[in-house]
Amino acid sequence: MKDLVIGLDFGSDSVRAILVSATGEELASCVHNYTRWGKGLYSDNSIAQFRQHPLDYLEGMEIVIKGVLKGQDASRVAGIGVDTTGSTPCAVNKDGVPLALLPEFAENPNAMFFLWKDHTAIKEAKEINDLAKKWHTDYTKYEGGVYSPEWFWAKYLFMLRNDPAVREACHAFVEHCDWIPSLLANAPVKPSRCAAGHKAMWHPDWGGLPPEDFLVALDPLLKGKREQYTETYTADEPVGTLCPEWAEKLGLPTDVVIAGGAFDAHLGAVGAGIEPGVLVKVVGTSTCDIMAAPSVDHCIRGICGQVDGSVVPGFTGVEAGQAAFGDAYAWFRRFISYGGEVTLPQLEADAAKLPINQTLTIDWMNGRRTPDANPFLTGALFGLNLGTTAPMVYRSLVESTIFGSRRIADRFMEEGVKVESILAIGGIAKKSKFVMQTFADILKMPIKVAKVEQACALGAAMFAATAAGLHKDTVSAIKAMNSGFDAEYFPNPENAAAYDEKYKLYCAYCDGLEKMTMENL
Amino acid sequence: MKDLVIGLDFGSDSVRAILVSATGEELASCVHNYTRWGKGLYSDNSIAQFRQHPLDYLEGMEIVIKGVLKGQDASRVAGIGVDTTGSTPCAVNKDGVPLALLPEFAENPNAMFFLWKDHTAIKEAKEINDLAKKWHTDYTKYEGGVYSPEWFWAKYLFMLRNDPAVREACHAFVEHCDWIPSLLANAPVKPSRCAAGHKAMWHPDWGGLPPEDFLVALDPLLKGKREQYTETYTADEPVGTLCPEWAEKLGLPTDVVIAGGAFDAHLGAVGAGIEPGVLVKVVGTSTCDIMAAPSVDHCIRGICGQVDGSVVPGFTGVEAGQAAFGDAYAWFRRFISYGGEVTLPQLEADAAKLPINQTLTIDWMNGRRTPDANPFLTGALFGLNLGTTAPMVYRSLVESTIFGSRRIADRFMEEGVKVESILAIGGIAKKSKFVMQTFADILKMPIKVAKVEQACALGAAMFAATAAGLHKDTVSAIKAMNSGFDAEYFPNPENAAAYDEKYKLYCAYCDGLEKMTMENL
Repeated sequence: MKDLVIGLDFGSDSVRAILVSATGEELASCVHNYTRWGKGLYSDNSIAQFRQHPLDYLEGMEIVIKGVLKGQDASRVAGIGVDTTGSTPCAVNKDGVPLALLPEFAENPNAMFFLWKDHTAIKEAKEINDLAKKWHTDYTKYEGGVYSPEWFWAKYLFMLRNDPAVREACHAFVEHCDWIPSLLANAPVKPSRCAAGHKAMWHPDWGGLPPEDFLVALDPLLKGKREQYTETYTADEPVGTLCPEWAEKLGLPTDVVIAGGAFDAHLGAVGAGIEPGVLVKVVGTSTCDIMAAPSVDHCIRGICGQVDGSVVPGFTGVEAGQAAFGDAYAWFRRFISYGGEVTLPQLEADAAKLPINQTLTIDWMNGRRTPDANPFLTGALFGLNLGTTAPMVYRSLVESTIFGSRRIADRFMEEGVKVESILAIGGIAKKSKFVMQTFADILKMPIKVAKVEQACALGAAMFAATAAGLHKDTVSAIKAMNSGFDAEYFPNPENAAAYDEKYKLYCAYCDGLEKMTMENL
Repeated sequence: MKDLVIGLDFGSDSVRAILVSATGEELASCVHNYTRWGKGLYSDNSIAQFRQHPLDYLEGMEIVIKGVLKGQDASRVAGIGVDTTGSTPCAVNKDGVPLALLPEFAENPNAMFFLWKDHTAIKEAKEINDLAKKWHTDYTKYEGGVYSPEWFWAKYLFMLRNDPAVREACHAFVEHCDWIPSLLANAPVKPSRCAAGHKAMWHPDWGGLPPEDFLVALDPLLKGKREQYTETYTADEPVGTLCPEWAEKLGLPTDVVIAGGAFDAHLGAVGAGIEPGVLVKVVGTSTCDIMAAPSVDHCIRGICGQVDGSVVPGFTGVEAGQAAFGDAYAWFRRFISYGGEVTLPQLEADAAKLPINQTLTIDWMNGRRTPDANPFLTGALFGLNLGTTAPMVYRSLVESTIFGSRRIADRFMEEGVKVESILAIGGIAKKSKFVMQTFADILKMPIKVAKVEQACALGAAMFAATAAGLHKDTVSAIKAMNSGFDAEYFPNPENAAAYDEKYKLYCAYCDGLEKMTMENL
């Protein structure tokens, strides 16, 4: 009986596996922290260089898969699904081996995976943006119109320019989420639609990766690099079956289907139980906002990205996000702790007691991601008078992060992507009733908090089940395997009306502040 | 030998006398807290009603004058000078007696002095402003263009409308600083130029108080009220000599000259040693900014007031001010003490260690007084990011209060009133080296801190000496009797250049914020 699947979730600090049934029952889970990463190797905070050694992934993967199989009947496993952080690419040789696995590059950070948050390619990102704005076609347009130093081409170009030895040995630059399935199946890379579409400017409009003339105009070092792939694949498509070498290593049969890889946030939305009309918000230090829209036939203004099939095959995956959410709360906690340690629950309890007040915060403490990315923006407090207290400001800060969420939802709707309700996952969704109730009041729609604890790994498992044929498609897998929700918040009409007024003010002050900021840069 | 004078300073909470020589040597000082006021009688914080009983003044005056004469040769006293808070007027009968001194009004707050900070006449002030803006002549134009509920006509009208008994018995509405000299000399009131010009819309352009048609259009109850006086007098002009009754009561001879009264802030500037080109700043919870300009032949835009001779006879007295200075620091201290008590010296020490940072504060936590009064404005913080700390904000708050000072000085200069240096008095001037150095750096001019502790009383004594003929004029009295300074701060050129840049930003953000505020009221 083949009725189990494994979801493998490579996060920033650790890798996790879960073993679940085709009906979504979790039988086991296991987590492993990356060894070298945990020691701070190959990274340098001062220049935002964050690299991960492929051995961290290999060792971790073996440990967690064996971990979930302990005491289980391995022959029941039908498939493995994979998600990783991204864009997290690495230079590989002709055989698809990450260069850092070769003795000559074992200690070279440029031969390792460039973790998503690595910012060494700031200059390269700026060059890409400058050129894209001048070009006849803006190849960043389906990725929100602003290319990030965290993404594929910026990192690739940085490596090519700064490390001749790695450049020479590099045959291709491969995303973490593409490498793992290819490795397990010992099959050629099947590039992830999600990674390619959201981070590498891949699009059918221009037949794949950006055209040669554009890349060469950026830098002749990019000559021929677009040939790396033309086709991309959704995560429900099998990459192959488990190769004998890894089957033996992991104690699994060779008929286990390996599903395509994708990014963690996207599969998190799937694991949470995404449906059309539902905006899945991963509410943590920042937010990641994901939708699977029935059909988007135009380019959505000022949103991080839109890629057919990147979340649920058959739907357009749309991604947005707020640059600071919990981070803004944590900042205020640190800030206000100058005279003595303050906790967020204490601030929240005092803030929740207050009426809506005249303090107005703009939540751009880490710039603005969406709508309309602008890294030059900073946070602001308005309406201060001699009676303004810390809980008043905290309350307005919570409001502002949610006003920021409303601006994203409003933009979706202006652009024809209907948002009917919110499904929240992430630490704050679980922990703060006050924040979630304010969410419902300000967005004037119901907010569900998904029950699932490991949404990303469950999403990967759903794709494994689909690829292995346990469900006829991803939508069926989501229906069968999602864990439902454990809380639901409904708008309070009186608060909703008051927040409507304050939201107008927030929008007016956001626009005024942005204008002032840009005029005075 | 007649070589001593008494300066009598009626403050908000207490009255103080000093006995000084004609060369400025202080021989004695004595202070008395108002008894009834101290018990909270006749006032009501909840409606900003602040009234003072004339007996508090009479009893206090007797105590402090006797206090400074103890052990002194009273025959050496040549004159008495008086300053009071203002506008602090009271209804008096035909004999000039404040109505609350009559048995039938002894407990009626409307028959007492309306202390400067009384805000019961908010509605009346609005009516005055509305009518003045529609009238062919704006009679508020030499008083900054905005009439305050704290001032003479608003309070007078409030009393006339709200208390028929007091209205019937009221012969005139007399300022505290006019009543005291008239009482001591048992002479008719000689209205203070300072009080009339700064607070009662008195001006030679329209031959005295505002014309009858304007006042009657405001309210027929004001019919005939402008006849109260036409002429006004500078404080160097004697009102008379000490009357026998008070001479006996105080133990002073009857040849003691009684100088004219004036407001405390103006005489404080005199006592500090004001000169042309010197802006005297009383730096406390708010600021009062006073200049004696050689000649101002036009109406200065957006400044609290300009009155010939109100500070130094022969010069135009110009008054401005910031609505919150130390109050803004105190607010931030309270605000940041949420997690545990913080002190201002601690914040200041940490702020002083920092470089100039990207945080920008707008210091309108209590609205804006000058330039261009606007009570709708509120404070704001800009440039917040995830690394912003309390000392950074405190530093920017200090900067902003001083940027606010620079905007006043800049406005003076744009209007042809030359500001060459600052002479500071008040608590913050004495206490904070950091604030004073930042002052010099931002205003790019030297800042002296006057040595005198009781500047207002000393200013009153200077006028007493002038009125009594010990000095030929006020300028000579100021030269002979001022106490010099005990600290001087010079601009640091490097900081000055950096602050010049940040000041441009402050001005741009002030203008942008004001626009946003007014558009979204």
